[in-house]
Amino acid sequence: MTQFINSREDAVTDAIDGLIRASGGALARLDGFPHIKVVVRNDWDKSKVAIVCGGGSGHEPSHAGFVGKGLLTAAVCGDIFASPSVDAVLAGILAVTGDAGCLLVLKNYTGDRLNFGLAAERARAMGRKVNMLIVGDDIALPDLAQPRGLAGTLLVNKVAGALAESGASLDTVTAAAQKISDGARTIGVSLDTCTIPGTPKEDRIPNGRAELGLGIHNEPGVEQIDYATADGAMQAVTDKLAPLMGDTPHVALLNNLGGASELEMSILANALGQSSIAGKVSAIVGPAPLMTSIDMRGFSVTVCPATDEDIAHLAAPCGPAAWPGCVGLGAPVTQPMPDGLAMLDFTPSADPQVAKIMGLICDTFLAAEAELNTLDAKSGDGDTGSTLAAAARGLMDASDRLPQADTAQLFGAVGQELGQIMGGSSGILLAIFFTAAGEAAGQGASLQDALQAGLARMKSVGGAAVGDRTMIDALDPALAAMDQGIAAAARAARAGADSTADIVQAKAGRASYVNAAQLKGHRDPGAHAVALMFEALAQSSQL
Amino acid sequence: MTQFINSREDAVTDAIDGLIRASGGALARLDGFPHIKVVVRNDWDKSKVAIVCGGGSGHEPSHAGFVGKGLLTAAVCGDIFASPSVDAVLAGILAVTGDAGCLLVLKNYTGDRLNFGLAAERARAMGRKVNMLIVGDDIALPDLAQPRGLAGTLLVNKVAGALAESGASLDTVTAAAQKISDGARTIGVSLDTCTIPGTPKEDRIPNGRAELGLGIHNEPGVEQIDYATADGAMQAVTDKLAPLMGDTPHVALLNNLGGASELEMSILANALGQSSIAGKVSAIVGPAPLMTSIDMRGFSVTVCPATDEDIAHLAAPCGPAAWPGCVGLGAPVTQPMPDGLAMLDFTPSADPQVAKIMGLICDTFLAAEAELNTLDAKSGDGDTGSTLAAAARGLMDASDRLPQADTAQLFGAVGQELGQIMGGSSGILLAIFFTAAGEAAGQGASLQDALQAGLARMKSVGGAAVGDRTMIDALDPALAAMDQGIAAAARAARAGADSTADIVQAKAGRASYVNAAQLKGHRDPGAHAVALMFEALAQSSQL
Repeated sequence: MTQFINSREDAVTDAIDGLIRASGGALARLDGFPHIKVVVRNDWDKSKVAIVCGGGSGHEPSHAGFVGKGLLTAAVCGDIFASPSVDAVLAGILAVTGDAGCLLVLKNYTGDRLNFGLAAERARAMGRKVNMLIVGDDIALPDLAQPRGLAGTLLVNKVAGALAESGASLDTVTAAAQKISDGARTIGVSLDTCTIPGTPKEDRIPNGRAELGLGIHNEPGVEQIDYATADGAMQAVTDKLAPLMGDTPHVALLNNLGGASELEMSILANALGQSSIAGKVSAIVGPAPLMTSIDMRGFSVTVCPATDEDIAHLAAPCGPAAWPGCVGLGAPVTQPMPDGLAMLDFTPSADPQVAKIMGLICDTFLAAEAELNTLDAKSGDGDTGSTLAAAARGLMDASDRLPQADTAQLFGAVGQELGQIMGGSSGILLAIFFTAAGEAAGQGASLQDALQAGLARMKSVGGAAVGDRTMIDALDPALAAMDQGIAAAARAARAGADSTADIVQAKAGRASYVNAAQLKGHRDPGAHAVALMFEALAQSSQL
Repeated sequence: MTQFINSREDAVTDAIDGLIRASGGALARLDGFPHIKVVVRNDWDKSKVAIVCGGGSGHEPSHAGFVGKGLLTAAVCGDIFASPSVDAVLAGILAVTGDAGCLLVLKNYTGDRLNFGLAAERARAMGRKVNMLIVGDDIALPDLAQPRGLAGTLLVNKVAGALAESGASLDTVTAAAQKISDGARTIGVSLDTCTIPGTPKEDRIPNGRAELGLGIHNEPGVEQIDYATADGAMQAVTDKLAPLMGDTPHVALLNNLGGASELEMSILANALGQSSIAGKVSAIVGPAPLMTSIDMRGFSVTVCPATDEDIAHLAAPCGPAAWPGCVGLGAPVTQPMPDGLAMLDFTPSADPQVAKIMGLICDTFLAAEAELNTLDAKSGDGDTGSTLAAAARGLMDASDRLPQADTAQLFGAVGQELGQIMGGSSGILLAIFFTAAGEAAGQGASLQDALQAGLARMKSVGGAAVGDRTMIDALDPALAAMDQGIAAAARAARAGADSTADIVQAKAGRASYVNAAQLKGHRDPGAHAVALMFEALAQSSQL
């Protein structure tokens, strides 16, 4: 079992009950489990037009997550990726449809057409006013007579729901929703298949490839394309949409197919905002999971011509928390940096020997990036190498404007640079180390004494001592041995770093959250980095 | 590249710009990219208390996604899983802090403590009123002196933000936020590690196991436990929380660590609502992604004693769409099924020969479940076998109440049963088939003619003909050959089913969305199922 479910059979009913439990009383379901899975507004009095949508499950929050004031009146849920039965659809219609009638929205799949169509016929035969709207917004196969219904369904439902909530007639609601349905165009791209409960995951999309033109049931996309970047994936999508967009303003809906992280979805929003179609997109819905394929790492973009009135309906407040709103799509607004952050001024100076030592240290950290990341992943978050490499790159970039010929100023400047560019605990601790060492050197301390002063300050602010499994375990003995020469310091640093592999009860840093069995036999990455640096200095003929 | 990013280096800045683009003008950022990554409210006039939060990125929507009216005033973002620099934090404080002062909220990690602490000191030295609040809600390691900050941070921020928006003083805001921070207790569980941009994914958690007591930086949980079901995972979490909860009402926050699907999160909400602590939980926030570990398939539960006033602050409307609200946690409400769904009444009757044939057919579909699912996965959504097996189980359950001795009634009853229990396109098409066949038989047609009438009706409603790669490709020739005996019908069905492997341009059903190369060489699962059934009947000595 690789998902949080109890069984394939109970997945949908469990999820519906969970949704209702966490709805604060806004939702209810018909008493027809397990065959009849219909979620309804619990405050519904049938005085307004009912909006009923449905289809297979596995697309959460669609559709049950959109039941609520100003959106759907009822959602009819099938099993995962399977249409609900005729009886289930009929139950949903009958439960919420009063004299004002019902707009039945479905996606264009054979099963849904058959089941919803028969249910609508039966409801009409029982005297209910039912209009049926079939959404087919897919453009993956432009010559398909029956395009599939995808995330454009959400735009249709929201416009219909806002109008119905305002008291509009069935004909008015239907006409506005049909206009959105006619205008909506959707295409998606994915980097991986989804995990269907109870079914082995298919490994269909190789690394470096993506599928373009997806359905929402894990069926293969119409083509595989090369994948390198988020911008490239967005361009593949917008290249398909652009020729279909006239010159009128559009709304765009950026849909998470379920498995893309929030970080990725924001990156994709940025890509959309810089894309060739951005100029025609006046408003955006999302990024958000709206019509998912369970946990598919993919996204879709829907575009649709939209008037100010359409946008107002999409932006109208509504009950369901799953609806992300609709706002203008704009360029990133910047504000000027506040005063008070000015760097201290140092006078640049050159010293070839200092430059060589700095270069040697920086090269050591750059070469060790992967090794240190791997070591850090045993006890922390795997970024020690990247953090030190970034610092090394930053210092090398800054090298020409550093006061190389004045040790006190140089330490202060290095401390300031590291505080600016490095981040992370090691960054601030090293900034404190160098700033304090620079202060001591400025007051006439020897090199060894100045570095010892920095070490003392770092211990005090950071709260770590020798034996706590930090870089101090290498730095402390190395600095103590410096008066015996750099080779002795390197040996002391190495011994100290190696000793951290036996420290299984870390007292400071992220390793302190990790249990002993995980730590045993792995050196602390910070201590190892310090030892690598001293060893590089000792092995260099320049010293 | 397995994620939608452009490069590890640009991931956070791209995501911030995407967030701001899609904010409708509500957000801005300081002009300090790439080192200074601070997101601020774009409408801020410094007249109220500023709420500033921050930390490493990779926890989206935390924290930048919560900047907005009634929540955070500014978010200071580090690189992925790395604390922001002192200068970045200081820039964030200075940008939004006016005379009313600033509450600086951070999670208890060494790096954040150092950077935020130094920045707060520098801001105070510049005359700003800054209160600092360190959240440490983790209970994974109960004896840890410095518990980590986790999703409880969101409760702290929301209460602080609501109070600040109402015009409360810094001391009032701080006291209310501190009370929430003191009361919040969080623990999480995960089925997989997360994907850190630019770093190979670690395969640390074997199938059937889960990690309990997670941080939010992909560090290992404090223990691995057996994993079987969502209910079991929730129990592991609530067993840790229960002993720490007194008798006062609590709010619970159900947090998606990033990679659990919406379906799973609703199932977990259902599990929470049935757990041992449910009686003490009066309100719930979520389920929603609030404090993620990028795309980790896991969740955390935070509980915190909450007064009515606290709940009001958590439920207060706010700008950020990422905040899911706070509502009562209740039992699933049900409404009675509507009238009009009554089944037609059939008089049960027994016929041992009919019962045997039905049993043989049902056994055939039960035995073929996995084979048919696998075949369907080549062209559709992989559920043909499960759908038919469910139908077979349902019919066998209903066997005793079927009118076995009356062919016309039996067909009608089977049609009605399949319409009720089966769902999916095949369900409704078979319901139409049997209902029409029953009607014809009732009017005196022979068995073969009655079945032919059913076939004709199914073709008409479904819109498919021979050659369209559907079950009709086997059913049509089989029924035509029935007058030559069941063996001939089986041979015709098999030939028809086999012919579908060469039909690469499907015209009906989900296979019509799949390209030719995907279909070539794979039989249509519906046609194959029909052939299996006729073959089983032909091979049986009972006929």
